[in-house]
Amino acid sequence: MAGPLTGMRVMDFTRALAGPHCTLLLADMGAEVIKIERVKGGDEVRRMGPPFINGESAAFMASNRNKKSITVDLKDPRGREICLRLAKWVDVLVENFRPGVMKGLGLDYPTLSQVNPRLIYCSISGFGQTGPMANQGGYDTVAQGMGGIMMVTGVPGGPPVKAGVPIIDLGTGMFGALGVLAAYIARQQTGKGQHIDASLLDSSVALGLIDGSDYLASGDLPMPLASAHRRIAPHGAFRTQDGYITIAADAAPATWTTLCRILGKAEMETDPRLADNTQRRKNLPFLIAQIESATTTRESAFWLEKLQAAGIPCGPVNNYDKVFQHPQVLARNLLVENVHPKAGRVRMVGKPLKFSDTPATDLVPSAALGEHTTTILQSLGYTADELEQLRREKVI
Amino acid sequence: MAGPLTGMRVMDFTRALAGPHCTLLLADMGAEVIKIERVKGGDEVRRMGPPFINGESAAFMASNRNKKSITVDLKDPRGREICLRLAKWVDVLVENFRPGVMKGLGLDYPTLSQVNPRLIYCSISGFGQTGPMANQGGYDTVAQGMGGIMMVTGVPGGPPVKAGVPIIDLGTGMFGALGVLAAYIARQQTGKGQHIDASLLDSSVALGLIDGSDYLASGDLPMPLASAHRRIAPHGAFRTQDGYITIAADAAPATWTTLCRILGKAEMETDPRLADNTQRRKNLPFLIAQIESATTTRESAFWLEKLQAAGIPCGPVNNYDKVFQHPQVLARNLLVENVHPKAGRVRMVGKPLKFSDTPATDLVPSAALGEHTTTILQSLGYTADELEQLRREKVI
Repeated sequence: MAGPLTGMRVMDFTRALAGPHCTLLLADMGAEVIKIERVKGGDEVRRMGPPFINGESAAFMASNRNKKSITVDLKDPRGREICLRLAKWVDVLVENFRPGVMKGLGLDYPTLSQVNPRLIYCSISGFGQTGPMANQGGYDTVAQGMGGIMMVTGVPGGPPVKAGVPIIDLGTGMFGALGVLAAYIARQQTGKGQHIDASLLDSSVALGLIDGSDYLASGDLPMPLASAHRRIAPHGAFRTQDGYITIAADAAPATWTTLCRILGKAEMETDPRLADNTQRRKNLPFLIAQIESATTTRESAFWLEKLQAAGIPCGPVNNYDKVFQHPQVLARNLLVENVHPKAGRVRMVGKPLKFSDTPATDLVPSAALGEHTTTILQSLGYTADELEQLRREKVI
Repeated sequence: MAGPLTGMRVMDFTRALAGPHCTLLLADMGAEVIKIERVKGGDEVRRMGPPFINGESAAFMASNRNKKSITVDLKDPRGREICLRLAKWVDVLVENFRPGVMKGLGLDYPTLSQVNPRLIYCSISGFGQTGPMANQGGYDTVAQGMGGIMMVTGVPGGPPVKAGVPIIDLGTGMFGALGVLAAYIARQQTGKGQHIDASLLDSSVALGLIDGSDYLASGDLPMPLASAHRRIAPHGAFRTQDGYITIAADAAPATWTTLCRILGKAEMETDPRLADNTQRRKNLPFLIAQIESATTTRESAFWLEKLQAAGIPCGPVNNYDKVFQHPQVLARNLLVENVHPKAGRVRMVGKPLKFSDTPATDLVPSAALGEHTTTILQSLGYTADELEQLRREKVI
């Protein structure tokens, strides 16, 4: 069934991950995304790995499913002309070049908004389109460091640690997509498009909504706490006989009593060092040692069953092998597959949103480089002769 | 100036963080968000701290700016009636109760879609509305553990570590907002609303788009790497004389040569253990030690200047004190303030998106509990007498 964005057309100049995640979200919800790639080699992520399956990058296939691909030499005036025609035809443009590159190509927002005043133009960059660092290149790692996340992640006294998945690349794609949809809604009132400016740095700081705002209010710097919670104890990952589980108790006295009984640690209930949430936070290493003296005696499954029965939020701490075997993950369709013409059956991470009326269940494999050049350019009015000449001269 | 979502009305049953972040994003872009709170005490985050400023929770003020507040006893039939009238009047409903709670209140999607077929109804939960764990409570910590993130974050051989900011609460709010806007766009074609089902678990697994899909393709489990990159070396945080900096080199040989020269380590260039990206990844501890033997001799600012001049992406590793002093962060308006009637001048994290045409610069402080009950209920048609009685009987 068609997705909620069916009918929306997107021209997509993105490469790497932040931009492609933005257009993936749009494509997964039914937008027609046309990825514009270099004639020679295309998006560098096509060659990013390992892993590869029959030469196809797993990362590329996962982040570019449901998109079309055309190849265009943007430095050739005839390539630019293709983009201008395309800009008239689409609703949205997304790009993640360094600021200034699209201007150099004659494809910046002021130029394209002349061609199509209704165009929504989303720029994703390392540091944004403005400010003293605007023209520098940025990466997820740089943004995690500069935005505060790396200093509050890890173990106390340890080195800076980044979130182990590229949350800033992915998060900036999410913010970018949100901006695109908001601008699309605004266009219905204003009749015109606009320029959206999203960046890795902005996203990284924005994810400090609580931790950063708390610092601004208190002047107290947050420190890394491994898996513990800044305000509630016990709350985090605890070792068991065969791995780790999370226990996410609330601060209510009754929850603490229940937990002590499940763990068979009556002495914790009466220990003044653990008397209330404040004491437990103050004596966190002692608290963790006490809990793990119980949890390490049995396997994770044993404790999870007891905790769930008592209504204490908890779960396994899984790496991806067990993630993709978990009944709840499977029930949520978070493991999907499609059949790629070269790679064959490819399994990948599913979609995070379920829509009751417009579920968009299609999962088209990532396109071969330039797979849709002919059909898209034909629909822009190019003739077979013109296409042949453009191809011969490596413009497409 | 008004935001892109000006004119969109949202009724907001959310508490804690994931749901409130969803409606914050909508409110920050100009939607009218009406937060429906318990008569006694409201959202528990109002009491979440420290820090408090004159008794007001910093976390609450940051995550509930730009929203209105009304108090309603949902268990009273007259409270439910208020919600039914509101449901006719709004475009969007967002809730993050455990699955089943809204049904118990007679406010589930099937019921409200009868009242207003155009209503977009977004449910945010721990594990989703379906599957064997649907009815369990979830938290950011549980989802980070269960979705794979905790096992790939931290230092090699160390304990599970969660991202130090609540990326799953925040990320689920982002996905929820994306779903709401997509459904709003779909409604213009279909004429009707729909139910959106977002969850912490779905979001956590979805952030494994690359790492999880790579595992599915290769069978190789990703491991925690502190701040290092899974494919590129050197790329991560490195110690300096006065802190840490990130260096995010690409894998090109020329970049490596440049880096060796900047660091004054000609011997690295010729060392076979560091000859190419593959060797450098294989000998990562040695590589890091070599680089830090240079970087620890001077301060961060010295190295950042040299690296930036050479075009190698890099940045400081800052905690929030330095985050909010950085010229680029300030240039991006990522530190904002408003004046709260009780707390006075409150500084907080700014917005991650910049819109050229609909910037939505307003920043209304978080509302007092029930501040807008009278005005909203009057616009729903309640008379002064009715309001007085409802108030006397603690329905509002």
